Amino acid sequence: MDTVDDHRHFYKRSASRITIFAHIFGILSLILMLVWLLHYRGGLNLDSASSSRVFNVHPFLMFFGFIFFAGEAMMAYKTVLADHDTQKFVHFFFHLVAITLGIVGIHATFKFHDKARLKHMYSLHSWIGMATFCLYILQWLFGMALYLFPRPMGTRARFVPWHITGGRALLYMAICAAETGLMEKVTFLDIHYNREARLVNFLGLSILLFGLTVDISVALARHV
Amino acid sequence: MDTVDDHRHFYKRSASRITIFAHIFGILSLILMLVWLLHYRGGLNLDSASSSRVFNVHPFLMFFGFIFFAGEAMMAYKTVLADHDTQKFVHFFFHLVAITLGIVGIHATFKFHDKARLKHMYSLHSWIGMATFCLYILQWLFGMALYLFPRPMGTRARFVPWHITGGRALLYMAICAAETGLMEKVTFLDIHYNREARLVNFLGLSILLFGLTVDISVALARHV
Repeated sequence: MDTVDDHRHFYKRSASRITIFAHIFGILSLILMLVWLLHYRGGLNLDSASSSRVFNVHPFLMFFGFIFFAGEAMMAYKTVLADHDTQKFVHFFFHLVAITLGIVGIHATFKFHDKARLKHMYSLHSWIGMATFCLYILQWLFGMALYLFPRPMGTRARFVPWHITGGRALLYMAICAAETGLMEKVTFLDIHYNREARLVNFLGLSILLFGLTVDISVALARHV
Repeated sequence: MDTVDDHRHFYKRSASRITIFAHIFGILSLILMLVWLLHYRGGLNLDSASSSRVFNVHPFLMFFGFIFFAGEAMMAYKTVLADHDTQKFVHFFFHLVAITLGIVGIHATFKFHDKARLKHMYSLHSWIGMATFCLYILQWLFGMALYLFPRPMGTRARFVPWHITGGRALLYMAICAAETGLMEKVTFLDIHYNREARLVNFLGLSILLFGLTVDISVALARHV
C-alpha cells in the first residue's frame, strides 16, 4: 500500500490528471479572452486607426502567445509522447514561440501608448511585466547554452534545480503580470459592477488556475 | 568538483544566502508599506472615523500579518536553529499568526466598504485574495491533521509533495493578491505619474521579490 512504487504511481496519475486541467484552463482562458476583446472591446487589430483595437492585441498575445506557450512548454518537457530529445526540443521551441509572440504583444502596448499619448512603463503592471519578460529571455538563453549544446554532465546536473526553480518563478511572475494588467484595465475603465467586469474576473481566475495547474503538474511529475 | 556532495554544498550555500535576501525584502517591504501608509495615506487605525484610515489597516496586515508570516513560516521549517520538532512547531505557529492577522486585515476592508458604502467582493483582487485565504486555512488544517498528530509514516510521506506544492502555490497566489491590490488602489486613486505611485511600485516589486526569494530558498534547501 505505502511503498515508494505506490507513491510514484499516485503522483504519476495525479500529474497526468492535473495536466489535462491545465490544458482545459488554457483553452478556457483563450475563449474568455476572445469573448471579452471581440464582444465587449471592439476587436483587435495591430494596424487599426483605433488606439483601443491596437491595445487589445496586447492582452491577447501576452496570454495566448506568451503565458500559454510558456506553460505548454513547461509541461511538454515530460508529457510529449516522443523520445527525450524530441521532448527537449519541443520544450525549447515552445519557449521560442512564447518569446516571439510576447515581443509582438509588448510592441502593441507601446504603439497604443504612442497613439493615445500616454507615458510608457509607469505602472506596477509594466514593471512586473517587463522584468518578467527580460528574465525569461535570460533563462531561455541559459537553458539553451547549458542543455542544448554539449556540456559536461556535472555542470548540467548542477544547474537543474536552478533551471526548474527559476522557470517556475518566472511562470508565477508572468501570472502576476497578467492579473495586475487585468486589474489595471478594469479599474481604469471604471466598469466594476457590470457583466464585463465579471467576465474579466473569471478570465483572471482562469489564467491563475492555468498557472497553478501547470506548476502543480510539473512539480508532481518530478516525483514520478 | 562535480560530485553529489559538491552539489549539495552549493545548494546549501545558495539557499542560506537567498534566505537572507528573503528576510531583507520582507523588512524592506514593511518599511516601504509604512512610509506609504503613514506619510502619504494619513496613517492606519481600525477604529478611526475616517474610512481611509480604516482601509489602511488592510494592506498593512495582509502584507505584514499574512504574507510576511506565511513566508517566514515556510523558511522556518528548515532554517530555525533547533531540533526538527521545534522547527515544525514554529512552522505551524507562524502560519497560525498569519491566519489570525489575516482575518483582522480582511475585516478591515469589509469595515471600510461598509463605511464608504461600497459593494463587497466585486474586484478580481477580492476574488483572488479570498480564494487564497480560504485555501490557505484548508492547507493549514490538512497540514495539522497529517503532520502534527500521529499518523502512519506512509500516509505522511505520500502527501509531502502535495503539501509542499500546495504551499508554494498559495504563496504565489498571495503575492498575486497583493500585486492586484496595489494595482487597484493606485489606478483608483489616479496617481499614476507621481512620487507616491513610484513608491507603491517599489513596494510591489519588493513584495514580489520577497515571494520569489522565499520560494527559491525553500526549493533549493530541499536539494541539500
